[in-house]
Amino acid sequence: MKLGRLNHVGVAVPDMDAAIAFWRDTMGATQVCEPFDMPEQGVTVCFIDTPNGGTQVELLAPLSDQSPVSSFLAKNPLGGQHHLCFEVPDIASARSEFEAMDKRILGPTRIGAHGTPIFFVHPKDMGGILTEIMETPKASH
Amino acid sequence: MKLGRLNHVGVAVPDMDAAIAFWRDTMGATQVCEPFDMPEQGVTVCFIDTPNGGTQVELLAPLSDQSPVSSFLAKNPLGGQHHLCFEVPDIASARSEFEAMDKRILGPTRIGAHGTPIFFVHPKDMGGILTEIMETPKASH
Repeated sequence: MKLGRLNHVGVAVPDMDAAIAFWRDTMGATQVCEPFDMPEQGVTVCFIDTPNGGTQVELLAPLSDQSPVSSFLAKNPLGGQHHLCFEVPDIASARSEFEAMDKRILGPTRIGAHGTPIFFVHPKDMGGILTEIMETPKASH
Repeated sequence: MKLGRLNHVGVAVPDMDAAIAFWRDTMGATQVCEPFDMPEQGVTVCFIDTPNGGTQVELLAPLSDQSPVSSFLAKNPLGGQHHLCFEVPDIASARSEFEAMDKRILGPTRIGAHGTPIFFVHPKDMGGILTEIMETPKASH
């Protein structure tokens, strides 16, 4: 694998409205996408753009107590950095490479918040970083 | 303040050589800067470039038990995401704005790993994210 673009930094937040207000008012974000639910992932998602199409901040709030971000928020009630997402040109070959390296992949390859296939790799095999691998959207490059 | 470029994601690592090997061999990084010590910050630093001058990964290993990353590593022995660094055009006015918002700034403005002035803001005032604010290098834009 060749290291790809850092598509986004995933940030867990306990309250989406408060988090959006923070990124607008404190951090000065001007491009805030409309939040949307991803019920199959158990989260509400909102992307914050940085200038010139740079790496985004992906806010993640739990849709229920069973959400993947709920246990993170139980340990970190204020929220915080949840995962890093790097792009790859081809998701299937990236998955094969991680499998060949005996990295623990969390669940099947599925469609992520940007509409392209993604998978997650276990933080214990990735220097403590929950790592999302995402196929680069075809239209964006 | 207007949200600036995400300059880098700071990642604490227990062993710099092992971390560089991970980013080269597992993540496929091809542009790895030479590690250097910042004794006044208590860390060894190594920047990993992402394609097309995108957001960097900044690896941080402690120089001693008193290093700011030592307590993080005591809680997270594998390492993990330590801070986010956003660029601003003028560090003094950014500092004044954070002060006016009653955000706790950690120490004086100082010269960071990229040679421009930086300061850190307390994670408890920033949605759980230790946040570095960095003046954009003049030569890079």
